[in-house]
Amino acid sequence: MAQTRAISVPAPGAPFEPTTIDRRELRPDDVQIDIAYAGICHSDIHQAKEEWGSAIFPMVPGHEIAGVVSAVGSEVTAHRVGDRVGVGCMVDSCGECEHCRAGTEQFCVRGNVQTYNGVGFDGEPTYGGYSQQVVVKDHFVCSIPDGIGLDVAAPLLCAGITTYSPLNRWNAGPGKKVAVVGLGGLGHLAVKIAVAMGAEVTVLSQSLKKQEDGLRLGAEHYYATSDESTFEALRSNFDLILNTVSSEIPVDAYLGLLRTGGAMVNVGAPSTPLSYNAFSLIAGNKVLTGSMIGGLPETQEMLDFCAEHGIGAEIETIPADQVDTAYERVQNSDVRYRFVIDTATLGTR
Amino acid sequence: MAQTRAISVPAPGAPFEPTTIDRRELRPDDVQIDIAYAGICHSDIHQAKEEWGSAIFPMVPGHEIAGVVSAVGSEVTAHRVGDRVGVGCMVDSCGECEHCRAGTEQFCVRGNVQTYNGVGFDGEPTYGGYSQQVVVKDHFVCSIPDGIGLDVAAPLLCAGITTYSPLNRWNAGPGKKVAVVGLGGLGHLAVKIAVAMGAEVTVLSQSLKKQEDGLRLGAEHYYATSDESTFEALRSNFDLILNTVSSEIPVDAYLGLLRTGGAMVNVGAPSTPLSYNAFSLIAGNKVLTGSMIGGLPETQEMLDFCAEHGIGAEIETIPADQVDTAYERVQNSDVRYRFVIDTATLGTR
Repeated sequence: MAQTRAISVPAPGAPFEPTTIDRRELRPDDVQIDIAYAGICHSDIHQAKEEWGSAIFPMVPGHEIAGVVSAVGSEVTAHRVGDRVGVGCMVDSCGECEHCRAGTEQFCVRGNVQTYNGVGFDGEPTYGGYSQQVVVKDHFVCSIPDGIGLDVAAPLLCAGITTYSPLNRWNAGPGKKVAVVGLGGLGHLAVKIAVAMGAEVTVLSQSLKKQEDGLRLGAEHYYATSDESTFEALRSNFDLILNTVSSEIPVDAYLGLLRTGGAMVNVGAPSTPLSYNAFSLIAGNKVLTGSMIGGLPETQEMLDFCAEHGIGAEIETIPADQVDTAYERVQNSDVRYRFVIDTATLGTR
Repeated sequence: MAQTRAISVPAPGAPFEPTTIDRRELRPDDVQIDIAYAGICHSDIHQAKEEWGSAIFPMVPGHEIAGVVSAVGSEVTAHRVGDRVGVGCMVDSCGECEHCRAGTEQFCVRGNVQTYNGVGFDGEPTYGGYSQQVVVKDHFVCSIPDGIGLDVAAPLLCAGITTYSPLNRWNAGPGKKVAVVGLGGLGHLAVKIAVAMGAEVTVLSQSLKKQEDGLRLGAEHYYATSDESTFEALRSNFDLILNTVSSEIPVDAYLGLLRTGGAMVNVGAPSTPLSYNAFSLIAGNKVLTGSMIGGLPETQEMLDFCAEHGIGAEIETIPADQVDTAYERVQNSDVRYRFVIDTATLGTR
């Protein structure tokens, strides 16, 4: 049992406080990682406030983890001490069901073990990346290629795979027109990835406030959804719409922007139900779907793709004592585009 | 200009009356068909009552047409006098747009010309199959293989292709579990077709009233959706759900019946909006989509498939003077499973 510094939320919605947590002794298939950076995902905030159902406290959030391997179990062959690695939203799954065998561990029939706010198959609660060290089963550790800095790589482990997976599955690529709804933590990576895949990318954002950024990231077009003429101008225009926002949207209006056979993928989920007219789907054989992170093989594929195309997140690096402020700013959409905690600021090990 | 006997609705919701209508002189690419049978589609009723927006009266409904070629234009090579043929929901399209070139004429950017309640590119209103003769551009005329009677073939031209196309696109076949929601005109053909494709078929119907029929048509399982335990028993069970009902359904409950990556296709459209929770799609990468009839190549493929597998509609043949009563019975779901008008009963030509 090793101790590591961390910051934790003692109770729902409480401020963070410095703490020390235990990490388990290395099992034969475990990798010990010295964490360098941990991204702040909006879902961290929902869980720290217990907005997504019953949660486990104290909580150490963080499922966008990048660091360096500092020890490995006796049976680990895929990773070595000194390797640059990352951990995303999952740290275990049954390994035997059809989904685990297919490399889509996020759909494990036994339920995957979340990186934090979860309970391992050993019955112990899991603590995430807002700490200096973590011990994770080798299968759930990805390699971060040399081409990407660990700081800009961290957010790829959740925001990156969440957007890469549907762009990949729904064939974003040359000759395809892709709209990204919302230019935030997810959206800005979706733009970079879709552009790198060769698609013609349009950002659909509430306002034109971030237009310059959107175009700099590679989008060819940028429209404000608060302007009703946008929905007329872009009618039947897109092969794929990736909706990254969690607020309620007028689904029929967005379906109207799809070409025949086009698809709209939701990765952001509002808490209230959405409404649509079945005819919006029938007239044009259109698809409405959702996508949930991605499995381990696809996460590695995404990291390799990002390295090859020079893609990292746009980040603002903060010390650990600024996480409360960062949470407030995320809730006010006041970040371009992802906060990353420098875990060295947690003090000397 | 040739005259032919028909029945027409003079005004929205009025009873049918016998009439005589003009059919155009044969153009070089036209096929003249002596109609033998015309199916009654639920959409005929909606349009005859002007429930789907402004309609053209007098109206001669009917887009499930089966008959025999009685003349052809000078340039027609695909059909000959004496051939058994069918006509579905469309009688023309631009022929030049990407959709027409792809054989999905139902999505023609200029708008396809509906078989009735439409206006041709010549500016003339179209009249449908509740008549003894029709003149249709050759491209929109399908061959009915010898293996199928013209009476049981007629409903395939709309109900058949409407269900075949999504079953085909979403890979109903061996090893796949397919649910058909609703055992009516569309649903009973969906069951037959999905079974012939090799899928394991379950009928989800309001009650168990038609269970015997459903199993006779080839379904392996039959559940009542009025029984709440159905939604628990079949949780995460289906690869594909084909929803043929036009009434409002609890979308999230049905999405819960899909396996990871599964799809629910709507071919029936309620007039009121449907509601869903985005998380029902995200948790399991599930697909909600719609499907609109099918193009001409796929319609011919469907007819060939049905002939090969001995599939025709289950029909009740009626004389023309019983169409008003039949409309009432369709609205009361009192038909097993499609009314077909014997056009010989329209009197001697």
